[in-house]
Amino acid sequence: MDPRVEEHAEVLVEWSARVEEGDNVVLNVGPDAHELAVAVAEKVGERGANLHTAYSSGEVGRAYALAHDGDFEEDPDHVLALMENADVVLSIGGGRNASEGSDVPPEVQQAQSKARQGIREAYMDTDWVGTVHPTRSLAQQANMSYEEYREFAYDAILRDWESLADEMAKMKDVLDAGSEVRIVKEDTDLTMSIENRVAVNSAASVAYDSHNLPSGEVFTAPAATEGEVFFDVPMTIRGERVQDVHLTFEDGEVVDYSAAENESVIGDILDTDDGAKRLGELGIGMNRGIDQFTDSILFDEKMGDTIHLALGRAYGSNFPEGHEDEANDSAVHVDMITDVSEDSFLEVDGEVVQRDGTFRWEDGFDADA
Amino acid sequence: MDPRVEEHAEVLVEWSARVEEGDNVVLNVGPDAHELAVAVAEKVGERGANLHTAYSSGEVGRAYALAHDGDFEEDPDHVLALMENADVVLSIGGGRNASEGSDVPPEVQQAQSKARQGIREAYMDTDWVGTVHPTRSLAQQANMSYEEYREFAYDAILRDWESLADEMAKMKDVLDAGSEVRIVKEDTDLTMSIENRVAVNSAASVAYDSHNLPSGEVFTAPAATEGEVFFDVPMTIRGERVQDVHLTFEDGEVVDYSAAENESVIGDILDTDDGAKRLGELGIGMNRGIDQFTDSILFDEKMGDTIHLALGRAYGSNFPEGHEDEANDSAVHVDMITDVSEDSFLEVDGEVVQRDGTFRWEDGFDADA
Repeated sequence: MDPRVEEHAEVLVEWSARVEEGDNVVLNVGPDAHELAVAVAEKVGERGANLHTAYSSGEVGRAYALAHDGDFEEDPDHVLALMENADVVLSIGGGRNASEGSDVPPEVQQAQSKARQGIREAYMDTDWVGTVHPTRSLAQQANMSYEEYREFAYDAILRDWESLADEMAKMKDVLDAGSEVRIVKEDTDLTMSIENRVAVNSAASVAYDSHNLPSGEVFTAPAATEGEVFFDVPMTIRGERVQDVHLTFEDGEVVDYSAAENESVIGDILDTDDGAKRLGELGIGMNRGIDQFTDSILFDEKMGDTIHLALGRAYGSNFPEGHEDEANDSAVHVDMITDVSEDSFLEVDGEVVQRDGTFRWEDGFDADA
Repeated sequence: MDPRVEEHAEVLVEWSARVEEGDNVVLNVGPDAHELAVAVAEKVGERGANLHTAYSSGEVGRAYALAHDGDFEEDPDHVLALMENADVVLSIGGGRNASEGSDVPPEVQQAQSKARQGIREAYMDTDWVGTVHPTRSLAQQANMSYEEYREFAYDAILRDWESLADEMAKMKDVLDAGSEVRIVKEDTDLTMSIENRVAVNSAASVAYDSHNLPSGEVFTAPAATEGEVFFDVPMTIRGERVQDVHLTFEDGEVVDYSAAENESVIGDILDTDDGAKRLGELGIGMNRGIDQFTDSILFDEKMGDTIHLALGRAYGSNFPEGHEDEANDSAVHVDMITDVSEDSFLEVDGEVVQRDGTFRWEDGFDADA
């Protein structure tokens, strides 16, 4: 076994999920994630936790959904009971075909998702962590050879998370103390209020309220957005390639938009509901183990020297206790990414925090460059 | 997809498990049983039942068990809750290595099994069915090519179960009406009492209290066994090849035994406890879709023109209601098979029921041949 598979399992079980003796663990395994599942089972056993292994297959899910009449039962007892009695849920993505769900009608997917709201809530109450085992299908999606993709994925996953968490704590401190953020680059000059918000240091561990491995971003929930922003990182949204999105905000809402490719996807998102016109997230990517875009949000939005903004739903974790219901509400949460590695700066309360990808606590930083 | 995979799924869901709308179904999938799992998911969806898919991997189980300190928690809540809320459990065997558990110490396996007694009881309370997807590993175990093994497995599984059930009902009627069974062949003249017993028509359906697919046997629980019996079908018992077992019974208990190969395995079994010296099962194999031995008890004991006897534990289902506790008790249940296709006969209360493989209701039967 590639020793990185065992290291991945160790990071997942120990750093990310903090599995402890007696924990009831559900391990969701993708069809091609078997190898990592074996390594994770070993770590779960070592810790004296209790393991149930579930099979998470796009083909199985598709066959079931397409054959069903669409009137899905609400929160089936057996799955709800499993989830309500779980302490930790580890989900290892790694299918054989990233497009497996492409012919399941969106309304069927939505009906199924809606019928499982109680299960999803029980799941969110666990110490859940999502990761991926680098598979050939994911390599293909990233337009890489299998070996190249494994290098890429493990560079992103096998970080020194403790020191990255310390590094990100600096960014969190700046955001927590600040009131207004400004991003400036080509076709971009955007200001947002972050007054009374709590930034999350997303250090790939439930101990940091962070549930993805890899992670490596600091995010908050902006408001009162004004100005324009240009997203130069191409992305697949709802199965469509979307390129060079440009948004204009007034009074916190999108008033104009354009895209070089599949502009209508952006229009559809904005039309979802009122919340879809507002930003739900501002994220600062700080994982420098990720050095290229692979059309996977799990990796792309964490990339060092990038900033992402999401239209739609905000996370309650960005609000002070008791104020979680002030989070922007929407049925969607769509991330878009802009490269800030050069000719750009990020200001908080009028002071430059990052210029051309370099933070002010790093060597080579020049506020006025 | 091989159309037989879909037929297998249909038999499993409709004939065997009788899955109905709203049933909570747990589908246990072996690592190489993916294809059948997809077909089963479709049938479960068609019926409007609720699906949870579990992953049943020898490698995952081994890694967990070997890493654990051996002090397994009793009936972990999450798995127990899943099972207690399940109506149907479909287990599709089909691993990649039939010997995967070979280096897990028996005491670890026993400790794990003991710690899951409540889960097992909840499982037994469901409409559970076990089957196998023909995999390369199973083909290897059967000493067949993959294609040959698939032919073999589907011949056994894709029967006209309804008409086989009718056929087996005749055998059940004979046993239910009878008091004494006698088997005569080379080195064999064995009599057993079946007074006050209920024969089970094991027609591969929960509707017949039958939980294996394939099945195709009628079985009961014998007592007061006298005489000798010779098992000419080779078998792997506890990982050892056992050949030509000969047992002598007096007053219902084994008083002498021999085997041409690995005789000590039989000695070890007999030494387990008092119940291990008595018979727990007499089974009449009636599935003529199974035409050769493949060293898999799921198939071998159902083969047409064979009879099997098990040392050890009897099934409560062979006793009238309220008398289930009269079933022979033992920690073991070890099946052994004898070929009755020629030079042999089976008598019930002094009347020949089967001679040289032909039952008395079949063409060509001659009681006195």
